[in-house]
Amino acid sequence: MEKLYCGLDAIYEEMVEVRRYLHQYPELSFQETNTAAYIADYHAQLGHKVRRHVGGNGVVAYLQGAKPGPTVALRADFDALPIQEEADVPFKSKHDGVMHACGHDGHTATLLGLAKVLNGMKEELAGTVVFLHQHAEELPPGGAIAMIEDGCLEGVDVIFGTHLQAQQPLGVISYRSGALQAAADNFDIMIQGSGGHGAAPHETKDSIAIGAQLINSLQHIVSRKVDPLDSAVVSVCNFVAENPYNVIANTAQLTGTVRTLKEETRKFIEEEIERTIKATCDMFQAGYEYTYSQGYPVLVNHPKETAFVAQVAKQVPGIEQVSETLPIMGGEDYAYYLQHVKGTFFFTGAGNPDWDKAYPHHHPKFDMDERALLHAAKVLGAATLQYMRRDER
Amino acid sequence: MEKLYCGLDAIYEEMVEVRRYLHQYPELSFQETNTAAYIADYHAQLGHKVRRHVGGNGVVAYLQGAKPGPTVALRADFDALPIQEEADVPFKSKHDGVMHACGHDGHTATLLGLAKVLNGMKEELAGTVVFLHQHAEELPPGGAIAMIEDGCLEGVDVIFGTHLQAQQPLGVISYRSGALQAAADNFDIMIQGSGGHGAAPHETKDSIAIGAQLINSLQHIVSRKVDPLDSAVVSVCNFVAENPYNVIANTAQLTGTVRTLKEETRKFIEEEIERTIKATCDMFQAGYEYTYSQGYPVLVNHPKETAFVAQVAKQVPGIEQVSETLPIMGGEDYAYYLQHVKGTFFFTGAGNPDWDKAYPHHHPKFDMDERALLHAAKVLGAATLQYMRRDER
Amino acid sequence: MEKLYCGLDAIYEEMVEVRRYLHQYPELSFQETNTAAYIADYHAQLGHKVRRHVGGNGVVAYLQGAKPGPTVALRADFDALPIQEEADVPFKSKHDGVMHACGHDGHTATLLGLAKVLNGMKEELAGTVVFLHQHAEELPPGGAIAMIEDGCLEGVDVIFGTHLQAQQPLGVISYRSGALQAAADNFDIMIQGSGGHGAAPHETKDSIAIGAQLINSLQHIVSRKVDPLDSAVVSVCNFVAENPYNVIANTAQLTGTVRTLKEETRKFIEEEIERTIKATCDMFQAGYEYTYSQGYPVLVNHPKETAFVAQVAKQVPGIEQVSETLPIMGGEDYAYYLQHVKGTFFFTGAGNPDWDKAYPHHHPKFDMDERALLHAAKVLGAATLQYMRRDER
Amino acid sequence: MEKLYCGLDAIYEEMVEVRRYLHQYPELSFQETNTAAYIADYHAQLGHKVRRHVGGNGVVAYLQGAKPGPTVALRADFDALPIQEEADVPFKSKHDGVMHACGHDGHTATLLGLAKVLNGMKEELAGTVVFLHQHAEELPPGGAIAMIEDGCLEGVDVIFGTHLQAQQPLGVISYRSGALQAAADNFDIMIQGSGGHGAAPHETKDSIAIGAQLINSLQHIVSRKVDPLDSAVVSVCNFVAENPYNVIANTAQLTGTVRTLKEETRKFIEEEIERTIKATCDMFQAGYEYTYSQGYPVLVNHPKETAFVAQVAKQVPGIEQVSETLPIMGGEDYAYYLQHVKGTFFFTGAGNPDWDKAYPHHHPKFDMDERALLHAAKVLGAATLQYMRRDER
Repeated sequence: MEKLYCGLDAIYEEMVEVRRYLHQYPELSFQETNTAAYIADYHAQLGHKVRRHVGGNGVVAYLQGAKPGPTVALRADFDALPIQEEADVPFKSKHDGVMHACGHDGHTATLLGLAKVLNGMKEELAGTVVFLHQHAEELPPGGAIAMIEDGCLEGVDVIFGTHLQAQQPLGVISYRSGALQAAADNFDIMIQGSGGHGAAPHETKDSIAIGAQLINSLQHIVSRKVDPLDSAVVSVCNFVAENPYNVIANTAQLTGTVRTLKEETRKFIEEEIERTIKATCDMFQAGYEYTYSQGYPVLVNHPKETAFVAQVAKQVPGIEQVSETLPIMGGEDYAYYLQHVKGTFFFTGAGNPDWDKAYPHHHPKFDMDERALLHAAKVLGAATLQYMRRDER
Repeated sequence: MEKLYCGLDAIYEEMVEVRRYLHQYPELSFQETNTAAYIADYHAQLGHKVRRHVGGNGVVAYLQGAKPGPTVALRADFDALPIQEEADVPFKSKHDGVMHACGHDGHTATLLGLAKVLNGMKEELAGTVVFLHQHAEELPPGGAIAMIEDGCLEGVDVIFGTHLQAQQPLGVISYRSGALQAAADNFDIMIQGSGGHGAAPHETKDSIAIGAQLINSLQHIVSRKVDPLDSAVVSVCNFVAENPYNVIANTAQLTGTVRTLKEETRKFIEEEIERTIKATCDMFQAGYEYTYSQGYPVLVNHPKETAFVAQVAKQVPGIEQVSETLPIMGGEDYAYYLQHVKGTFFFTGAGNPDWDKAYPHHHPKFDMDERALLHAAKVLGAATLQYMRRDER
Repeated sequence: MEKLYCGLDAIYEEMVEVRRYLHQYPELSFQETNTAAYIADYHAQLGHKVRRHVGGNGVVAYLQGAKPGPTVALRADFDALPIQEEADVPFKSKHDGVMHACGHDGHTATLLGLAKVLNGMKEELAGTVVFLHQHAEELPPGGAIAMIEDGCLEGVDVIFGTHLQAQQPLGVISYRSGALQAAADNFDIMIQGSGGHGAAPHETKDSIAIGAQLINSLQHIVSRKVDPLDSAVVSVCNFVAENPYNVIANTAQLTGTVRTLKEETRKFIEEEIERTIKATCDMFQAGYEYTYSQGYPVLVNHPKETAFVAQVAKQVPGIEQVSETLPIMGGEDYAYYLQHVKGTFFFTGAGNPDWDKAYPHHHPKFDMDERALLHAAKVLGAATLQYMRRDER
Repeated sequence: MEKLYCGLDAIYEEMVEVRRYLHQYPELSFQETNTAAYIADYHAQLGHKVRRHVGGNGVVAYLQGAKPGPTVALRADFDALPIQEEADVPFKSKHDGVMHACGHDGHTATLLGLAKVLNGMKEELAGTVVFLHQHAEELPPGGAIAMIEDGCLEGVDVIFGTHLQAQQPLGVISYRSGALQAAADNFDIMIQGSGGHGAAPHETKDSIAIGAQLINSLQHIVSRKVDPLDSAVVSVCNFVAENPYNVIANTAQLTGTVRTLKEETRKFIEEEIERTIKATCDMFQAGYEYTYSQGYPVLVNHPKETAFVAQVAKQVPGIEQVSETLPIMGGEDYAYYLQHVKGTFFFTGAGNPDWDKAYPHHHPKFDMDERALLHAAKVLGAATLQYMRRDER
C-alpha cells in the first residue's frame, strides 16, 4: 500500500495540472468530444487497452494485472455545466458559458493519476482495473445507462466511485449503506381551463385558481401520505399563466421536481400527483395533461462493499474522519451501475479549511481544495488493491 | 317631437356614412387627433361654438337655443381598440391592429347626426345643448376626468349618454337607477420569497407555494367577507414564476382585476387583499410588494333622471321594450360626469335580429345593427327636448 | 277607507292585548294547539266560517262580503321559537324556553284585529276575505305547504302578507318585486376517511385534513362559479370530528346552509357542492355521504301586486316611507303561496325610534314597537278594500 | 453466562405466572398502588433493599454483588391503559375498562424473574444492579421524570431497558443508535372568530373557514419547512365547532399531536405552528389561544452502549436476528433516563409466528408471545453481566 500512496504523492502535481487543463476547456453534457479524446489518449499512452465512444462519448480503459483476480471498476464523470464561471482562478474556463462547477474535472484527474500509478504496479496487481470515464452525468438520461448498454460493466465484479464535495472539509470521507442519493424526477402539468373576462369568473374555468388549489393539495402528499420516516420532496418550481389584468387564464403550466429515496415511494408519488391533478380538475370540470419524467433512480450502495470501503478509508494517510452520512436529495446516475454490480459511492471532502465558506456546487464561483484529488485517489486505489488481496485468499 | 324624429329619419343615411368613415380610420386611446378634428370640423360647419383639445383630444360643441332654458350635455366617446379587425364588412378598418370594436364610431355618428337635427330646431330650443365628444374611454385614466378638469361640465344641468349594445336586441332600451357599471381596478402583487434547490425546500421560501396559498385565501374575500347581496369580483388573471424544473421560485408575480358596485366595497377589498397578502407572507416570513390601481369608479345613475329617460324612451317610435337591467361588471368613465352633475347612462340594443349571434364587444368580428344609431339619437334627442320643456314650466 | 282606519284605531288597544296574551303563551312549531284554538274561537265569535286543523294546526276563516267580488287571502303565522326570553317586559313568556322572538304574535294580533274591523264593514265588502292563520313557519317543512295541500288557497285570487321588522324604523313599508327572500336549504356531509395513530398519517385517510380541503374548495363556488350579480351563500356552520390528541379522525361531520335567490342557482349549488365533495374525497380515496335538504323556496313577489300594495301603502296614514328593499337571505314559507296565486309579501317597520338599538329577530331580548301592528293592519286592510274596488270596475 | 440462561429457563413458568397475575389486575397510570406493592414485596422477599413510593408509585430495588463493580440500572414500567379488554385469554383483565394492552405486565414479569436469577448469582456479581420499576409510562408527564428527581439514578453508571413488540417476530432484537423514539407533544388551538347567521357571513368571522385554512397551511410545515431528511409529523386530530345548520361558528377547537426526532425540529415546529395560526387569524382579524404541551423528549440511545447491547444480544440463545431499526414516531419516557446516564433502549420481538397477525399495541385484543419475556430477560441479564465483566478489566 505504501507504494500506492507514495506513487500518488509523487504525481500529485501532474494530477493538479490535468485538472486545471480540463477546467479551462470544459464541455457540456453529450458534447464532451475533446475531453473524451484527451482521456482516451492519456490511457493509450500508458499502454492501456482503450474503448472510445462507449455509449456516446464514454471512454473505458483496461489495466490487466500480472496476477489473476477480480475485476474492479472505478468511475469518473467528465462533463461540465452551462454556467458562466465567476471564480477568480488562474485556470478559469476558456469556454464562454461553460464551467466545471461540479468537480468532474477533479474526478477525471484523480482517475487518470491513479491509472498511471496503478499501471506502475502492474506486476503486483491481482486482477483487472476498469477505468470508466463517463460522459453526461449532469443531464438525464445521462451517460451511465448508455455505457452499460454498450457493455462497460462486462466482467466487472465490483465498482467504486466518489464525488468530491467542496462543502465537506478536506480529510473527511462520508459513506452510507443503502440509499445515498435520491431519485430525481421531473413533472409537467398543463391545466386546461377555459378563459374569459376577469369580471365574469362564472363563465370561465379559472386555470390559475385551479393551479393554486392543486399546489395546495399537492402538499398533502408529503405531509400526510408519505411515511414520516421516509424522505420525499414534491416541488412545483415553475408556474406560468400569462394574461392581461382582466383576462382569466385559459391554461396554466406547472413544472417541478420529485425526490425520493425508495422506488416504491417514487412510484407512489407519481400516481398521487396524478390523482391530485385529476381530482382538482374534476372539481372545476377542467382538463389537464400530465407527464412524469423519471430521472436517475435512487443510488443504493451495497452494504458489504460500503462497509469495506469505509474500513479501507480509515487507514488511508491524510483521512482524518470516516463517517456515515445522511442521504442527499440530489440525483446521480452512478445509481445505474449499482443496479448491475455490487459496489459503493462515497463522498470525499474538498473544502479548504482556510476558506470562510465554500461556494456550493453549480455556483459560478465554485472551487475546491485540490488536495482532495489525492485523498480520492488514495481511497479508490487502496480499495482496489485491498479488494484484490482480500479476494486472493 | 315629430320634427325631431322625422329629422333624424331623414339623415339616417348620413349617420351611417359617418359611422362607416370613422370605422375605417380608427385611432387608439389618447392618439385620436384625426377623429377629434373630424368631429370639431363637423360642428364648426354647423355653426356651433367649438372647443378643441379639451382635456387632451376632447371636443366640446355648444348649441344655444333661441329660448332660455337648462343646459343639457350629451356625451359620445370616440377612441378605438388595439384589435386587428376580422369582421367581413366593406368598411373594414384601414388601420392595422386598430379597430372600433366597441361601437364608439356609432356613438359619435349618433351624436353628430343629432347635433345636425337639433341645430335645425334651434328656434324652438329652450336651453343649451353641450355635445361632449370624449376621447380615451378605453384606457384608464380615461378622457372624462381630464375634460371635466378642463371645464367641459361648466354650466351643465344634466347629462345623458348611451352605449350601443350588440348583445341586446335592436329595439330595447335598458336603464338602471343607482349602480349601472362597476368600478374596475387592477392590482399587482410581487411575492418576495427566497429561491433555492428544488430538493431542499426547507432552505427556501417557496414563492409559488406562497402564491398558491394567497390565491386560495383571496377567495374568502368574495365568499365570506363581502355581503352576498352586494356584488364583487377578485380575479387573479396572471401568475408568472418562471424557473427550471428544480429551482424553487425566488419571486412570483400576480396581477388581476377587482370589480365592485359600491365605493365602500371597493375600498374594503383593496384593504382586504393587502391584509391577505400580508398574512400569507407572514406565514412564510416572505416579503411582498402590492399596488392597487383604481380604474374608473362605479357609474351611479341618478334616480330621477333615470326614471325620466326611461319614461321618455317608452314613447320613442321604434323602441319596443324599455326595461330595467342588472348592473354590468365592466367599467365606464362616464361615471365621473355623474359625480359632478345629475344624469343617467343607458343601453341601446344594437343586435341584429337576423344574426345567429352577435359577437361580443372587443371581439375581432364585432359588428352592430346600425339602426341602433337612430334609436339612440331619438332617445337622446327626445330626452333633451322633453327635459327643456319640463323645465320650462 | 276612513272607516277602516278609524275602526282599526279604535281597537288598537285590543290588538295589543291579544298580542301580549299570545306572547305570554307561546307554542313551538307544530305544537301550537292552544294558539290555534284561540284564533279559531276568535273568528267563530265574529261569526266567521272557520276551518280548524288545516294541514295540521292551521286555521282558515272566511268573511263573505255583501257584494260579489274577488277573494283576497291575508296570512299571519303564529308559531314561536325555542328561546328563553330575556326581554324585560310585563308580558314576558310564561312558557319556559319558548318565546315569540320573531313577531308572529304581532302578526296574529294584527290579522285578528283587522278581521274584527272588516267584519263590521261586511255590508260594503265586495268579495271574500280569507284569513290564513298559519302554524309552523319557523321549522321546515313549515305549515304553508300542508295548508295549501289541504285547500287553504281554493278560490283565492290574491294573497297579501307582511312581516313586522324590528330593525326597520316604525313608519316604513318595504316592498320588492321579484325575489324578496332566499331559498334556505341545509346540507349534511359525512367524510368517511380512515382513522389511525396521529404519528402515522400515511396509514390513514385523515378526515379532518380532507374536511379542511373541502371547506376551502367550497369557497370557489361563490367566489368563482356563481355570477357576481347573483347572490348566494354557502356556509359550513358545523364541523365535528372528535378524537383524542393522537388519533387521526376516521370520519368528520360537516353541516351548513345554502342561500340563493334563483331556483337555477339553488340547483347549481346543490350539484357543485357534491362535485366538490366527490373530487376532494377522490384526492384522498375517501368516501362520503351527502344530503341536501331543500328548505323553503325563493319567495318571489308578483310585480303587479307588489306595485299595487306599494301604491296603496303610500296613502295609509302613519306610513312615512314606502321604499324598495334589497332581498334578504333568510327564508319564509310564504313563498309557497306565491307559487300558486298572485300576491306579495312586504315588511312593516317595527323599530321604536326611541330605542338605541333594536335587538335582532330570534334574540332573547327581542321586542318591537306595537304601533307597527296598526300600520300592518291598515296596509293589509287598505290593500284588501282597494283590490276589491279596483276589481269592481 | 450459562448459569444466567439456565436460571432464567428454570423460572420461565414463574415469569409467565407473574405476568398473567399482573394482567388480571391492571391499574391505570398514577393509580398503580397494588402493582407497586406486589413488586416491592417480591423484591423484599428476595432480600433486596427496596425503596417504595419513589417519585410516586415507583419502586427501586438494589442487588449488591459480592465483588466491586459498576452500577447497572434495568428499567421496567408497570402501568396499564383505559381499554376494555377483548382478548380471548384465560387471564383476562378483571378490572373493567383497564387493560395491560401495551405489554408492561410482561416488562415487569421479565425484570422480577431476572432479579430472582441474578440474586442467586450474587457471589459472582461484580457490581450493583438497580431495578427501576417505573409507574405511569403511558400518561405524560410520566413516572420517569419524578423518579429521577427522587434519586432513582443516583450512582447509576449505565441503564438498559427494552420494550416487548408484538408486531415484530419472536427472536428478533432491534436496536438503534441515536434517536429511537420521537418526541411526542400535543397542542390545543382555540380560534376566536365571531359567530352569526349563516346567511350573513360578512357580519361574522367564520371560525370554521379559518380553521380549515389553518389546517391547510399547517401542511406546509412538513412539506416545505422541515428538511426532507428529517422526520416530523403535525396531525390535527380533533376539530370541534358545533352549531346549528344556520349559525356560523363563533369558535373552533383544534387539537393534535406533533412528533419529531430532533430537539431543534421540535422547537421549530412549536414556533411554526404559532406563526401559521397567527397569520391565518390575522387574515380574518380573528383571535386565538395556543398551547403547546411538550410530552416525552426524543429518546436518544448512546452509540457505544447501543453497539454493546447489540453485540451481546447476538450471542444470546434463542435470538435469531439482531438488526438496526428505523426510529418509531411514538414517545417513551425512558428518554429522560438517557438524558442523565449512558445507556440504551431496544425492542424485543414478541409476535407469535403462528398468529396470522398480531393486534397492535393499545388494541383491545392485544396479546403477545410470552416466550419474549425469556428473550428480554436473557439479553438484559447478559448485558448486565457482560458490562460488569468488561468493566472488571
